[in-house]
Formats: sequence, C-alpha cells, structure tokens
Amino acid sequence: MNFILTDSNVARVAAEKMEQWRQRYDAELIVIPAGEDNKSLATVAEIWRRLSEAGATRSSTLVCFGGGMVTDIGGFAAACFKRGIPHVNVATTLLAAVDAAVGGKTGIDFNGLKNEVGAFRMPQQSFAEVETFATLPPREMLSGWGEAIKTAMIDSEEMTRKMMAEDPLAIPADRMAGYVGYCRSVKERIVAEDPTEKGLRKVLNLGHTAGHAFESLMLEKGTPIPHGCAVAHGLLVTLVLSAFRAKGESAGSLQSLQSLVSRYSSWLKEYYGILPVTCRDHDRLFEIALHDKKNESDGTLRFVLLEVPGIPLTDCPVSRDDFLSALAYAY
Amino acid sequence: MNFILTDSNVARVAAEKMEQWRQRYDAELIVIPAGEDNKSLATVAEIWRRLSEAGATRSSTLVCFGGGMVTDIGGFAAACFKRGIPHVNVATTLLAAVDAAVGGKTGIDFNGLKNEVGAFRMPQQSFAEVETFATLPPREMLSGWGEAIKTAMIDSEEMTRKMMAEDPLAIPADRMAGYVGYCRSVKERIVAEDPTEKGLRKVLNLGHTAGHAFESLMLEKGTPIPHGCAVAHGLLVTLVLSAFRAKGESAGSLQSLQSLVSRYSSWLKEYYGILPVTCRDHDRLFEIALHDKKNESDGTLRFVLLEVPGIPLTDCPVSRDDFLSALAYAY
Repeated sequence: MNFILTDSNVARVAAEKMEQWRQRYDAELIVIPAGEDNKSLATVAEIWRRLSEAGATRSSTLVCFGGGMVTDIGGFAAACFKRGIPHVNVATTLLAAVDAAVGGKTGIDFNGLKNEVGAFRMPQQSFAEVETFATLPPREMLSGWGEAIKTAMIDSEEMTRKMMAEDPLAIPADRMAGYVGYCRSVKERIVAEDPTEKGLRKVLNLGHTAGHAFESLMLEKGTPIPHGCAVAHGLLVTLVLSAFRAKGESAGSLQSLQSLVSRYSSWLKEYYGILPVTCRDHDRLFEIALHDKKNESDGTLRFVLLEVPGIPLTDCPVSRDDFLSALAYAY
Repeated sequence: MNFILTDSNVARVAAEKMEQWRQRYDAELIVIPAGEDNKSLATVAEIWRRLSEAGATRSSTLVCFGGGMVTDIGGFAAACFKRGIPHVNVATTLLAAVDAAVGGKTGIDFNGLKNEVGAFRMPQQSFAEVETFATLPPREMLSGWGEAIKTAMIDSEEMTRKMMAEDPLAIPADRMAGYVGYCRSVKERIVAEDPTEKGLRKVLNLGHTAGHAFESLMLEKGTPIPHGCAVAHGLLVTLVLSAFRAKGESAGSLQSLQSLVSRYSSWLKEYYGILPVTCRDHDRLFEIALHDKKNESDGTLRFVLLEVPGIPLTDCPVSRDDFLSALAYAY
C-alpha cells in the first residue's frame, strides 16, 4: 500500500502528471495545503495520521510529488513514520530538482525557524518532471537556475561556462533534463561522501553566506526575492572574494577567477537584474552574514570560496574589510 | 550548551542522582510530565520548543535521565532537532537499562499506536544508575528482569542458568550492575549487525509474540500486567514451542530444551506467579498473536524460537494446533 503526497497548488497545475505517478505506484493521494507556512508540525502530524489510519506498513512507499516544500516535509514524514518508510521524490520545480529533492535533508519549520526539526533521510529514488517546470513563474525558474549554476561552479569550469551561455528562461526541455541530471549527480557525489554535513558537504553552501544576507535584507525591506535568486547574487560576491584570496596565491588562479567574475557579472545583470542594494546597506549585510546559522563560529565570517572555478575551499576566513570591498566591487 | 531531560516522577524519586548528572554536563533541566500518556507529539514539540528557545546548537547534548518513556521520547527529540543532536541515555529503571535505553529505537505513541512515529538513533553513550532501581515497585523490577532473562536466553545457556538462580527482587547492586552490563553488551552486539531491524535484530523479540498476547489479554480483562512480566510468561510458551520443534530435529537439543522448560517453569511460578489464564482464553490469545504488528505476514504465526538455549531461530512458522498445545502445556 503506497501513498503520494502533493500540495494543493501542484495538484492543480500538474494534475495529469500527478495522476500518472499515482497510478504507477498504485498510491493513495494525500494533498496538503500549499505554501511554506504549511511546512509545519501540524501538517506533518496530519500526514502521519493519514498514513496510520490507512494502515501504512514499513514497506509502504511515500511518493513526494512537488517542489521543495513537499519533498522536505514528505521526506521527514517518511523518515519518522514507524521509524522510517521508503520515500521517492518527484521534483516538479527546478529548485527542488537540483537541490531540495536530492541529498536527504528533510524537515519542517518550527518555532519560527526554517528546518529546525528534521532528519537526514535519503530518498530511495529521485526523479524530476522537467516538463512541469514550465508551469513555474519566471522568478522561480531563475531561482532554481541560481542553485544550478552554483552546483556547476563547485564542480567544473567548463560546465559553468556552458550554463552561463544559457538564457535560464528559454532552455529546451531536453537540454534542461541534461543540466538537471548533471547537477543531481554532482550533489549526490558530494552528499555520499558526507551525508550528515560534517565537512565536505559545506561546499554546497557556495554563494549562500552572502546569498542569505541578501535574502534577509530584501525581506527586511519588504521586497523579498526567491532563495535561488539571492544565491545567484551571492555567487558574484563570492567570486570577487575568491579573486581577492587568489591575489596572494597564484597568478593563474587569479586570472581565471577574474575572467569568471567579469563574465558572470554581465550574465547576472542580464537575467537577474540589479539588486536595489546600496553602500548604506553594506554594514547591515555584514551583520546578517555574521549571524547566519551556517556561520556557527567565533565571530569570524567564514565563506566557501573557489580556489579556481570547479575547486571549492571551505571555512575561508573573510575580514570585514574584504567583505565590504567585495560588496562595493559587485554593487 | 547541554540539556537534561527527565519526567516529573523521576525528578522526584531520583533528585540527587539527577542533579549529579545535570552538573556533570553543565546542563539545563527539562522536566516533562510522567506517564506513558505523555509519550506524545505534544510533549516532543514542547521539548523542541525548549531546545530552540534556549538556543541549542547541533553540538548540544541531550541527556535522557529516566525510564523507557524518557529515553524513547528524548532520543526521538534529539534525532530530529536540527536534523540530529547527540544524546546520552542514563537509565534509572532495570527495563530501560537492559532494553529501551540500548539499541537506538526511539519514538512516541501516535494515533493510539505505540511508537508509531520515531527514529533509529543511537545514543552517544548509555549508562545505568543501578542504585535508582531500588526506588521501583517490585512489579517493575520483575518486568525489567523478564527482558534481562530473555536476553540471556538468546545468548548463553550458562548465563540463563545463572540468572535463573537469582531472586529478581533481591539482587545486590554490584551483581545487578554485572547483569545489566552483560545484557547491554548482548543487545548492542545484535543491534550493531542490524541497526534498522531488517533481520537478525528480530531475535530480540524472543518471547514477545506470546508475551504481547498475554499483555493484551490482561488489558482486555481489566487487569493489566507490565510488559516485561508478560514477556517472562511468553518465554515459557516459547520454550515449550522450541521443544516441540526440536522433537523432529535432534535428541540433544530436545533434552536441553526440556530441561530448561522444567526449570524455567518452576522459577517463573515462584517469582512471577501464575497468570489467570484458562483454556477458555486460548483462542483469543491465538487471535491476538496472529494480528500482532510484529507478525506482518501471510496469516501464519511466526515465532522466534530457540534451537538450543543461546541459539535463536527467527521466522519459525507455528501452527494453531502447536500454539494451543503449548498454551495448554504451560497453563
């Protein structure tokens, strides 16, 4: 006896695909209300209640069909029901396909904090429904592409270059499927070496320290931007900081990073526009970055930087001066 | 920043020991209401809220100080807070010391079902406060000793014999500490080979199919008995069934099992008394056993049996006739 979980929004916009997956697993449908606000303990309790009352067993599979909200909460529900039943992710958004649905991080928001409660739990399989991406608003596609570009940057200069040649809003489905497969395989390889985020997995946070700061700042200003778009902007700051670091190291690294900064900066402006951030915001951005939950340390800002494109370095200390200079350079 | 979790009952009867552990870990105290009814989602949410508001980090340790209820819910709270923080179990009851606090099964009751939601999560360390066992009512000591004897039976004829020479209510603390250490090491060895109960771990259910049936029957009759006492009675039925099985196999096995049946039967009657079960209850016991959640199969009753004392066999089919005969022989 299997189950398919989705949210009210996905159930509407991807009804046909959902029905195909439901039939493939001969699954009973569970629909939860859409929206990040519903990634809550109350919702996961409702999923457990449905599973329990329908008599789900340890060999029942939960198919999580949707975006990151569905794969996060569904993965967590599966991780804890009867101490763990198998789950399968079917990502219907680009962001979920390259990030949330891969790598086994599951969770719910709790006490006002994102993913405060959750589990590391690998999906048994992870699929992407590339054709449903087209149902997303443009900013959601850009958001997913921000994480996709990040993934390329930590793995390969060549793929980074190739993906920066694309208009993120006009990628044909077959090419998109190739990029999704590539990003997933990079993430899966990294996660396999560090499933519970002890060290190596940190490289996946490239662009995220500055990105989270942009995300929080824009929220404070009352003009929120999607996570992956904030990461896309954070990547520019990160590349500039990487070039600063390379200055003292090797001329070859410096050159390849400077070249990437200049190309990425143009590409970013063309597709993601310019963030309404001025030098008056820089001190605040530093404050936010310093208190980022992924920066659990001693008052020193630490970044994932690139040694060269494709080769990440974790825990690089970044001074306040360098951070502010990078912001000034980028914005 | 560490935390120590206990329940209102343990906090009262073992206040001094609790304070020692609190100081050892420099921990903040979290007290939850005692009683199995409180092994609930509401209680675990309250633990998460306390951890979250006090600013617990991924390196905070949760010390679970108490019986099985505290180690079950505390282990689950730790397993999911920020996707997992370390926890340490300090068992204050014999049953927890030899069973619940060891082996990594954690969970809460949900939707009226025991441990319906939970996780496999190993404690970082597991201790037993043998001196606090004396604060337990006699039936709770007998309950713990039932699981202890079960553990010996799956591991060693010699230890089984030695432990059956004891009056469970009059074991000096130093000898008790030795038995607890022995039972824990047996369970830890089995669990290490099968952490998520795929196969081998089933041997730990020796005595439990019949034991659960006795437990449920007594509950239905309005005279509930503790879990481990039901298991102690279930072990007698299991030994009789093991002897039935050995009849067709080997004369040596049969002899050692028959000898154990006769000694165990006397010992059980002396310390656990006689269950008020008659032949009119036998059909009902069969029904309950067949629908036991650990008997997820095809309508055939399956038992863990002993090939000889110390050597368990899993998934042994047991016919209705044999089950009823074993009950008739034992009761």
